[in-house]
Amino acid sequence: MIEVGILGASGYAGSELVRLLVQREDVQLNFLGANRQAGSAVSDLYPNIYQRLIQDYEVVDLQDPKTFNGLDLLFSCLPHGQSQAAVAQAYQAGVRVIDFSADYRLKSPKTYEGWYNTKHAYPKLLAEAVYGLIELHRQAIEKAAIIANPGCFPTAMLLGLAPLTQAGLLDGVPSIIADCKSGLSGAGRNLQGHLLFTEVNENVNPYAAGVHRHTPEVEEQLHRLQGSVQTQVNFIPHLVPTQRGILASLYVQAQEPITEDELREMYQTFYKGASFIRILKEGIYPQMKAVTGSNYVDIQVQVNERTGLIYIFVVIDNLIKGAAGQAVQNMNVMFNLPEETGLTAIGLLP
Amino acid sequence: MIEVGILGASGYAGSELVRLLVQREDVQLNFLGANRQAGSAVSDLYPNIYQRLIQDYEVVDLQDPKTFNGLDLLFSCLPHGQSQAAVAQAYQAGVRVIDFSADYRLKSPKTYEGWYNTKHAYPKLLAEAVYGLIELHRQAIEKAAIIANPGCFPTAMLLGLAPLTQAGLLDGVPSIIADCKSGLSGAGRNLQGHLLFTEVNENVNPYAAGVHRHTPEVEEQLHRLQGSVQTQVNFIPHLVPTQRGILASLYVQAQEPITEDELREMYQTFYKGASFIRILKEGIYPQMKAVTGSNYVDIQVQVNERTGLIYIFVVIDNLIKGAAGQAVQNMNVMFNLPEETGLTAIGLLP
Amino acid sequence: MIEVGILGASGYAGSELVRLLVQREDVQLNFLGANRQAGSAVSDLYPNIYQRLIQDYEVVDLQDPKTFNGLDLLFSCLPHGQSQAAVAQAYQAGVRVIDFSADYRLKSPKTYEGWYNTKHAYPKLLAEAVYGLIELHRQAIEKAAIIANPGCFPTAMLLGLAPLTQAGLLDGVPSIIADCKSGLSGAGRNLQGHLLFTEVNENVNPYAAGVHRHTPEVEEQLHRLQGSVQTQVNFIPHLVPTQRGILASLYVQAQEPITEDELREMYQTFYKGASFIRILKEGIYPQMKAVTGSNYVDIQVQVNERTGLIYIFVVIDNLIKGAAGQAVQNMNVMFNLPEETGLTAIGLLP
Amino acid sequence: MIEVGILGASGYAGSELVRLLVQREDVQLNFLGANRQAGSAVSDLYPNIYQRLIQDYEVVDLQDPKTFNGLDLLFSCLPHGQSQAAVAQAYQAGVRVIDFSADYRLKSPKTYEGWYNTKHAYPKLLAEAVYGLIELHRQAIEKAAIIANPGCFPTAMLLGLAPLTQAGLLDGVPSIIADCKSGLSGAGRNLQGHLLFTEVNENVNPYAAGVHRHTPEVEEQLHRLQGSVQTQVNFIPHLVPTQRGILASLYVQAQEPITEDELREMYQTFYKGASFIRILKEGIYPQMKAVTGSNYVDIQVQVNERTGLIYIFVVIDNLIKGAAGQAVQNMNVMFNLPEETGLTAIGLLP
Repeated sequence: MIEVGILGASGYAGSELVRLLVQREDVQLNFLGANRQAGSAVSDLYPNIYQRLIQDYEVVDLQDPKTFNGLDLLFSCLPHGQSQAAVAQAYQAGVRVIDFSADYRLKSPKTYEGWYNTKHAYPKLLAEAVYGLIELHRQAIEKAAIIANPGCFPTAMLLGLAPLTQAGLLDGVPSIIADCKSGLSGAGRNLQGHLLFTEVNENVNPYAAGVHRHTPEVEEQLHRLQGSVQTQVNFIPHLVPTQRGILASLYVQAQEPITEDELREMYQTFYKGASFIRILKEGIYPQMKAVTGSNYVDIQVQVNERTGLIYIFVVIDNLIKGAAGQAVQNMNVMFNLPEETGLTAIGLLP
Repeated sequence: MIEVGILGASGYAGSELVRLLVQREDVQLNFLGANRQAGSAVSDLYPNIYQRLIQDYEVVDLQDPKTFNGLDLLFSCLPHGQSQAAVAQAYQAGVRVIDFSADYRLKSPKTYEGWYNTKHAYPKLLAEAVYGLIELHRQAIEKAAIIANPGCFPTAMLLGLAPLTQAGLLDGVPSIIADCKSGLSGAGRNLQGHLLFTEVNENVNPYAAGVHRHTPEVEEQLHRLQGSVQTQVNFIPHLVPTQRGILASLYVQAQEPITEDELREMYQTFYKGASFIRILKEGIYPQMKAVTGSNYVDIQVQVNERTGLIYIFVVIDNLIKGAAGQAVQNMNVMFNLPEETGLTAIGLLP
Repeated sequence: MIEVGILGASGYAGSELVRLLVQREDVQLNFLGANRQAGSAVSDLYPNIYQRLIQDYEVVDLQDPKTFNGLDLLFSCLPHGQSQAAVAQAYQAGVRVIDFSADYRLKSPKTYEGWYNTKHAYPKLLAEAVYGLIELHRQAIEKAAIIANPGCFPTAMLLGLAPLTQAGLLDGVPSIIADCKSGLSGAGRNLQGHLLFTEVNENVNPYAAGVHRHTPEVEEQLHRLQGSVQTQVNFIPHLVPTQRGILASLYVQAQEPITEDELREMYQTFYKGASFIRILKEGIYPQMKAVTGSNYVDIQVQVNERTGLIYIFVVIDNLIKGAAGQAVQNMNVMFNLPEETGLTAIGLLP
Repeated sequence: MIEVGILGASGYAGSELVRLLVQREDVQLNFLGANRQAGSAVSDLYPNIYQRLIQDYEVVDLQDPKTFNGLDLLFSCLPHGQSQAAVAQAYQAGVRVIDFSADYRLKSPKTYEGWYNTKHAYPKLLAEAVYGLIELHRQAIEKAAIIANPGCFPTAMLLGLAPLTQAGLLDGVPSIIADCKSGLSGAGRNLQGHLLFTEVNENVNPYAAGVHRHTPEVEEQLHRLQGSVQTQVNFIPHLVPTQRGILASLYVQAQEPITEDELREMYQTFYKGASFIRILKEGIYPQMKAVTGSNYVDIQVQVNERTGLIYIFVVIDNLIKGAAGQAVQNMNVMFNLPEETGLTAIGLLP
């Protein structure tokens, strides 16, 4: 039995984690931490789950050593900034931790401060954290004390770009374009006027073009794969009126001719043995709905022979492979379980 | 290992059944029958599932005895009319069958012909069929040779009305009103102009008010529960722009005063032990999304003290509790498995 | 030139009013009142309109006599409670006023207080107010000093029930059922968690069943038409995931046999000359989208011969015929213009 | 009075044209041509409009000279291929024509055949046709006999790129990227499985990436503006679940440093006097809904200083500025009317 606690359980990512874990017989939920006021019981916020839970939200005191008693793993679904101390406290108590925030994703505290406008209070701990993208860092994850669970957009972008990078196809490319489309659950459960149904439905718009905070973790991971080369990322997110789903449309100028078949084979080889990556066969485009409700990643590659541009399309469910499912996948690997344990659900369609 | 075959696997209900069964280790899919032309491979119609299947659609010949070799259960997801013969052939071959169509739901061939404009070719077999609503007919289902899987709307209406009926609260009520709202997957995967996104999105409308074919099975089941009394049903379906979900809003004039608490307790007692029925606590209204992707049924009751009207609200996922999930639940009971086997998924929210 | 001012211009109804009036050459907008903080300029809240306006929101002081200088008409789109004083001040300044709130819709201050939990500070003014449903009260509206613009749901319900009532078909009917479906703009532009896209999309649910505040104005108007009889209204609203639109499904037990044709003819006669009422021909159901963006009201009637129940279906655009369009229609009649002036737009479809 | 006839009036673009024209008092609809079978009366297909029409669809015989009697303008909303002959017949009859199809958009019959797999039967007429993008070709349109109404995607792309091109900013750029998002009405009213609500809702996917037929008309127009230079276009369309709307996200590598302010000013200058172009102020992103139901075009420009990439975002209503509204705008200019006549409607929001 793996005993876990969850901080920030009342947001969408936290809730999705609860949904996944409550169906496991080998995992025990020790506590659901949340800051919610009276009136927001689990039954109010999660009408889908509450009958399966034996506990309600509670305020968790991480300074009380009893909180960590018997705990094998802490999931922190707190927002960036707030997660810094929670992770540090778990680490000091000798409890492994998976952090959903951006607080431990970047190696450089300076880069972190530049993009997040927040000082990092535990800069030395950054070296302990492993970027939790299993398809790239499986071995390090097995033994990690701290997992920085990747952002939803970076998960899609990096899984789409990693094979190219490893093959040297980004060498000499000054910048690439990632035109990404995200459903609304990616924006979280915050009361903001622009997230009202009436404002978002029947609407599509770009936002934070070129300045979104998920940019630096993609660049850092790419540069690690690339070595000395330094390709920059133009990340342009767009809101689309769906509940879930990210579609990353990635555009890379080929430096030397390559055929679509060669490219597809390169991706198949790179992801051999990866349980959740599905390289689609020729002529089928990824669609958000094929992965909704699942941990799958659908990828298609294409080469425009007229222009020499490589197109890569990647879809994920932002709350599963982009957040809670990826965290569970990390947990599985950390505890020597098959990575697909508890994650075999198939996408809902229609 | 339960060996099953599926006819009509390319429609939405059939596909949902495949999705549920492919995750079972105790069920083996012997064949997926479909009439689809070339070009509609499983990979085209079900991009969510196809990588988990080892077979494609095939045309199934039920007159070939080999088709039934080793088969424990046939699921017929064919449309009404087409299912008549398929069920009869399985029955004659000694194979149990769960029929998704309306062909074996009504006891009277005359009523069937009146509502469906189709003659019944196997009227004697109607007596063998059990109406597969486990919450009402569990014992008969355990031993049934033929299960008539209830319609999606009738499932919601009957689960909402059965406790009232048993308590005699429909006695003397000439007719009740069932204002039902259904998402689009209930209309199936047919190419009809009024099912295009552009026609349905941002739209709500009634259809087939008072003449929908799901009316007689609700009345037949009610009358069985009522005994001699004969309450009629005004069933008014409405299309709403969602993928899945049925909300049945049921209105019954109370003949004698009853309080909301008494009513709620009556429902809780009636459904004690029913794994999938959730009687909501006071003040919480059912919402479609709380059950989407699950086999749950959420029910709330209310009494308008000014007018004496009883309101009952029921939500289900039309493709799961209203079709494929209910069929699996029936299969579980037929084969002496816990009824919730393979059906414990929690609704996706958000 | 009609000089008008608008209070509460930043909400959805207020904005829709601005959209309608800014296209008029015979109407001049003297001021747009709103309480919005800095940062919510017209350009932020109304990206569709702002380039056509020459003014921004301002805080309006009704105690300053200059505010009313030259003003022919005040529109108050303030919430109930807040509108009481604004209407009274305009009245005292001799300026005609159209009030979007419920503050002047009910004749009895006691009923108002019972349903709105607010004391009425100007009970004597209630007698001056005319309920602004032109199809029922045209003559009184022509000369009214105060128009109580009907609620969106009551507009649909009353237009569906008035012909029945006038013909005496509600006599002896203790209560009727109004199962209404509304898009989200009816809930306004308030920051409430249950109005987020992620909570509302792919969802349908009832709310405030039997206790919604729009109930008493429907009953009051019905009883005026009925005379001594007192039919009660079971009003059960439901949220559906559309931007705009109300569908009222009304159910009335016929006391004596009547045919569908007779009923339809009765409605056609009742609404003869009403510019915006469209009684649909047999076999066509109203659909929300046929009226979206227009001031039209589509109505269909039906009789279930098995059960004797009359079904009436009514659709309107809640922001136009249910709010701003109806207000403009009232203004037109008050100022002796053809009632359809500035309201001839046809619904957007698809 | 301008007397017009419409071919292909039963599709979405044709219907939108009818909606716009039926509100005009200076335009008379002589006929509505459609091939629809019995049963698809105007009242079935256009429940929003039919009460305002005095005629139904008819089969139009262009070989009968009486068809052209008194006709000032023919709108052909037929699909490509079918429009070739219709346009030619009108031309020969001396009637001006606006063609919604691609048949007369390209100057080279060879290019046309390459992209449309259809031989052009009237290659000599191509020289007579003017590409109907008023913001670029106003003078030629005034006198044109044949207008090739631009495609919906090209309208958005070209309006976004034209100012850059004129300023020489595309010189030396081998290719640009146009990641476009379109609502479903752009796909027309065809019965295709992938256009069903259940397939499209809650979904986003790319299609025809790099091979969409709207590519060559964008390149041809760009190259005319550029002179000798030959920038290629990577056009990657995506389907998004909205009724209307196109968002074109355009990415161009700057060859020399330019600031965002300089760029915005360049656009403002270029579009000075263009009634429907709105260059948004800094910090506001275009959103589909701000233009839905209107002929407006909202444009924002941005420069990523890290990567030197220029981002241009353009939104239009694909059925209005992308089809019927643009056609009406062309008609206005052809008949010496102010270009905004009948097109002043403001977008519906919410």
